[in-house]
Amino acid sequence: MYTLFYAPGAASLAVHAALHEVDAPHDLVKVDLQVQRTEDYLRLNPQGTVPTLVIDGLAHRESAALLLLLAERHPQADLAPPPGAPGRAEWLQWSVALATSLGGPYRLWFYPQDLGLPEHSEQTRAPVQRILEAAFERIESHLVAHGPYLLGERFSTADYQLCMYMRWSRAMPKPATEWPALDRLARLVVARPAWRNAVAMEGLRGWHLDGLS
Amino acid sequence: MYTLFYAPGAASLAVHAALHEVDAPHDLVKVDLQVQRTEDYLRLNPQGTVPTLVIDGLAHRESAALLLLLAERHPQADLAPPPGAPGRAEWLQWSVALATSLGGPYRLWFYPQDLGLPEHSEQTRAPVQRILEAAFERIESHLVAHGPYLLGERFSTADYQLCMYMRWSRAMPKPATEWPALDRLARLVVARPAWRNAVAMEGLRGWHLDGLS
Repeated sequence: MYTLFYAPGAASLAVHAALHEVDAPHDLVKVDLQVQRTEDYLRLNPQGTVPTLVIDGLAHRESAALLLLLAERHPQADLAPPPGAPGRAEWLQWSVALATSLGGPYRLWFYPQDLGLPEHSEQTRAPVQRILEAAFERIESHLVAHGPYLLGERFSTADYQLCMYMRWSRAMPKPATEWPALDRLARLVVARPAWRNAVAMEGLRGWHLDGLS
Repeated sequence: MYTLFYAPGAASLAVHAALHEVDAPHDLVKVDLQVQRTEDYLRLNPQGTVPTLVIDGLAHRESAALLLLLAERHPQADLAPPPGAPGRAEWLQWSVALATSLGGPYRLWFYPQDLGLPEHSEQTRAPVQRILEAAFERIESHLVAHGPYLLGERFSTADYQLCMYMRWSRAMPKPATEWPALDRLARLVVARPAWRNAVAMEGLRGWHLDGLS
């Protein structure tokens, strides 16, 4: 039995979709990102982030790690190449690389206070935008050569991660869907019933049946 | 057969130590971080980072992912709880959390040009320092309650990651060894023969027999 602490559209979304994908019973607890640092929540997750996934009474965090864990706990859902199979190393690599090359920079984009700034100026925003666009550019090159998914013909949890990060770019100067191979991947991912269920449960608009906007 | 592309003391160090730990034959190729973005190297690693680990002719990157992979490929070395065992979720969580909460901020510390700055000023350095110290503070709290290793009594690859990141702080205003439980963990880790071998092969001084300086 799983309990997912989530915020609509936050880093919990990929984990939420994966829970639907593995067809596991789960409770959802909505966390208000403005007030999430309650003492109760910080006991579960000292960083005060979402997602937190409680499994058998133990709290776990870090969306990339939770996706690795769910794929491993539910091999029948075929969400990753099994140990020793072709693509296994790539799956691990992308799972970590997306967290470091997109998750980290997005934090700087959305939380300039991490950099000691009350808000971004054009001068402080531009380099973060360049970091994010360079990351999408590298992924695009990979997908053009090796797509349509990150692991080629094989869908994996890393595609949920990527689609979630792509969605966050929708109001940025250059949304990730402007790269054609990334757009193609997102369209494949949002067509999955598990993604649609998670998006609907979280009350999100767009990025499912209506298209990527 | 493994080939590790490394730079002395860089993020490749944890992977290098793990290769000694699993006792796997491996070639070492030293990469000059000043000139690493040669076309040949970028073909192996489009981000131009170290480490790159070549396995059976295929290049893989991201130190955290490589540590997960080596632990999985060499279960006899007992570098991680196996799937389904207690501590497995924590191991995945720490492996990712160290990459995001230390690896990312260190990049901002050492490469202010990522933020569009020719070099850090006191004003731009201070918030990055706060992010890093807050991360060490959270890890210290965890180790005080659940140490001496990240997974309690059990050493794992995540401790190599942490020790590597701790070493990078040695010239910072507050080196990570100033937190007692972190210092204790580092002393346990640098006493391991595999760490000592990697440090010696990379020609590093300190952080082995001579102590943590």
